[in-house]
Amino acid sequence: MADPVDPITELVNQLCRLPGIGERTATRLAFHLVEAESDLPLALADALQRVREAVRRCSVCGNFTEHDPCRYCASARRDDAILCVVESTSDIAAIERTGEFGGRYHVLHGLIRPLDGVGPDELNLASLIGRIGTNEVREVLIATNPSVEGEATAMYIRNLLGPLGVTVSRIASGLPLGGELEYADRATLGRAITARRPL
Amino acid sequence: MADPVDPITELVNQLCRLPGIGERTATRLAFHLVEAESDLPLALADALQRVREAVRRCSVCGNFTEHDPCRYCASARRDDAILCVVESTSDIAAIERTGEFGGRYHVLHGLIRPLDGVGPDELNLASLIGRIGTNEVREVLIATNPSVEGEATAMYIRNLLGPLGVTVSRIASGLPLGGELEYADRATLGRAITARRPL
Repeated sequence: MADPVDPITELVNQLCRLPGIGERTATRLAFHLVEAESDLPLALADALQRVREAVRRCSVCGNFTEHDPCRYCASARRDDAILCVVESTSDIAAIERTGEFGGRYHVLHGLIRPLDGVGPDELNLASLIGRIGTNEVREVLIATNPSVEGEATAMYIRNLLGPLGVTVSRIASGLPLGGELEYADRATLGRAITARRPL
Repeated sequence: MADPVDPITELVNQLCRLPGIGERTATRLAFHLVEAESDLPLALADALQRVREAVRRCSVCGNFTEHDPCRYCASARRDDAILCVVESTSDIAAIERTGEFGGRYHVLHGLIRPLDGVGPDELNLASLIGRIGTNEVREVLIATNPSVEGEATAMYIRNLLGPLGVTVSRIASGLPLGGELEYADRATLGRAITARRPL
């Protein structure tokens, strides 16, 4: 492993750049790939190249897609009246898995993070306002994470959309289903109490 | 994610084939790669292709290498008298990190696993005997894992090399350094007692 351009070392270095993959895991994966007598290394290389070549942002909602507009924007079966605003493409997959949302999406590609120098101008917001102006959108559901940045971004968008006469809603926060009061953190339990609903 | 040939889904599927990578991790990695505005996807694809094209087995020891013979076989500074037998290439990296071994290596590319139909003929054993016959090897250190298969393979190799007049040794088993008797499993503690050494 001394030569820096050794192919196995190079593969380890590239794998290390993935989130959550440390050097030990990268080494294990690299040796698996080297020892694999299957098509895996080349199939993975092809998949990576294809993603880079074929995937772009949907011109309507910002979702990553092979076809523009993306499947959610192109579908005739989705409700135009409600628009769900998410931080990233992967959040769409999570929401789709619930089966509870049948509207359209809008991907911000980030959250407002003043400490990292990310302001509203870096987010995919201009086209959000454009969509509300021209379409029959009646409700915007802001589904950013219930984190400091997610809440701040939600507030910013609420203020931005206020004058446009659209209902702005927020996903609920509280105890996770199956969770226990005793083990909930103080902030979550506090939110569960202040956001209580009539039964 | 409905279309099976969607590039992102394809990348998730390929990442899922890696050991220890489930669908959730694969999805997270895939979205990171899609969203990355760096060279990472293509650099990783290149590294994968290069590994597949440039890396082969060393004709002497079986280690995976770009150059044949590999660096351990080609080095003039290593001791020809002792040969360390390992299951796989990644074990060499682990042993090299200890700095405790300065001899040559021999990679079996597997262990004897009768239940999986892997017998001695599937292992890189013929060339091991050839190396002992022609070189000045005086000791063979068997460094397979202290597992059922690793022990069985070590016994097989010991019997195979017995008639060749070479010393066959085995890496020590016992409590790991920093380990505690109280938490050691019964088999490890038992081995530590039966394999006790004079102080």
